[in-house]
Amino acid sequence: MDNRHYTDGTTPGAPIRAGIPEHGRIPKYYAVKTQVAALLDELGEGGLLPTERELAVRFEVSRETVRQALRDLLLEGRLRRLGRGTVVAGPKLEQPLSLASYTEGVRRQGLRPGRSLVGLDRFPCPRALAPDLGVEAGAPVWHLERVLLADDERVGLESTYIAVERAPGLDAGFEPDSSFYGYLRDSLGICFGDADERLETVLATPREALLIGTPPALPMLLIHRVSRDSEGRPLERVRSLYRGDRFSFTAHLGS
Amino acid sequence: MDNRHYTDGTTPGAPIRAGIPEHGRIPKYYAVKTQVAALLDELGEGGLLPTERELAVRFEVSRETVRQALRDLLLEGRLRRLGRGTVVAGPKLEQPLSLASYTEGVRRQGLRPGRSLVGLDRFPCPRALAPDLGVEAGAPVWHLERVLLADDERVGLESTYIAVERAPGLDAGFEPDSSFYGYLRDSLGICFGDADERLETVLATPREALLIGTPPALPMLLIHRVSRDSEGRPLERVRSLYRGDRFSFTAHLGS
Repeated sequence: MDNRHYTDGTTPGAPIRAGIPEHGRIPKYYAVKTQVAALLDELGEGGLLPTERELAVRFEVSRETVRQALRDLLLEGRLRRLGRGTVVAGPKLEQPLSLASYTEGVRRQGLRPGRSLVGLDRFPCPRALAPDLGVEAGAPVWHLERVLLADDERVGLESTYIAVERAPGLDAGFEPDSSFYGYLRDSLGICFGDADERLETVLATPREALLIGTPPALPMLLIHRVSRDSEGRPLERVRSLYRGDRFSFTAHLGS
Repeated sequence: MDNRHYTDGTTPGAPIRAGIPEHGRIPKYYAVKTQVAALLDELGEGGLLPTERELAVRFEVSRETVRQALRDLLLEGRLRRLGRGTVVAGPKLEQPLSLASYTEGVRRQGLRPGRSLVGLDRFPCPRALAPDLGVEAGAPVWHLERVLLADDERVGLESTYIAVERAPGLDAGFEPDSSFYGYLRDSLGICFGDADERLETVLATPREALLIGTPPALPMLLIHRVSRDSEGRPLERVRSLYRGDRFSFTAHLGS
């Protein structure tokens, strides 16, 4: 509902003031996309979409045109592949932009959060990363990379960088499918103070697409986080990549 | 720099723990994309990229492969079309997620903000919109739609919905290329209290792509905002679409 212009379907009459003229030509695939989108509303979440061939017959267009319309709807998260069929997707997950962890955000929506380890390695800190971790260049740092899961579905990829001196036992004492923030708090007594985040949209690399199990052209939401502990000391740098068709982010802004 | 994995180019040795195995096959276009990206770093912002033909010869691949690599780099905002050439783009603009207006955010980065009117119309409030504007369904509401500019470049599209009773003289007293928030504050004495925002990535519709002047497949950042005045009364609903290749959004998170 939010994605639509409220003037659609109403009769607002002519604009009172108008700058740029409206453009009449609509690409054929887009007209089909609009018709399929209306069909999705009728079918409801989880409803099975007719085949490409059936849609091509119904809308009197080529299968290639149908395929282009479905591709857009898949990238936007309105449709999902399920086995050999295609079904109507549910709404995107809403994850708060807050110091709360991924775990808490997903739980709040009634889903089961999970993580699967890609790798934990240790390397000398590059110069560009050093200030964010509060160490000298060359000091040992951890890189923890995990696939993010929601109800066993792969939805994102998270890379955490933290100085080895802040979490020396990470390779032994930390269970990679548990909450890293829970580990910092409960095992090391480290509390978060504040963080700066930057959010942008990017395309998945082939490696990322493979790890998350997405089509390579899928727009992703990338969040860069630099955080400090409750004493203001630099703590970690995190690079979190979320499926753009499955996630939205929310913020409450005060004055 | 932020987009890269810090382990690239270092020799971290074998992962200490690894779950999912690495995958060896890299698509050819992606290998070319990586090589072109390195070239962009050498050329620096504003540097002119060699032609597709020259790149195809240099990297010993087909022009189609080069085209696919360049398409990705354009969508990601690493490259920009300039006249008939292609140049290295500067970093994305960083817009704070805050109650500050578009105007202030763009100015803070040393650019000249501007807006160009698409249309101002008046229509009966649909049921779904009524609670956000604090009116009954059917009450008259304004829809103000403007293209957002930064140094005369079109970078976004903004739709504002507000009850006519809150801003009765909008069609006469408001200069459409000025700040709407400035108008509310200075002419009507309305101050912002708080807002809820939701951010997601979407594909531009053909109409939006035309208005903003982007390729139709470009991933965009869409922000939905519902705001209240300083007395907690519902004020406006805004749908802002920003070019994903030109904008990132920042937030500071406290505990």
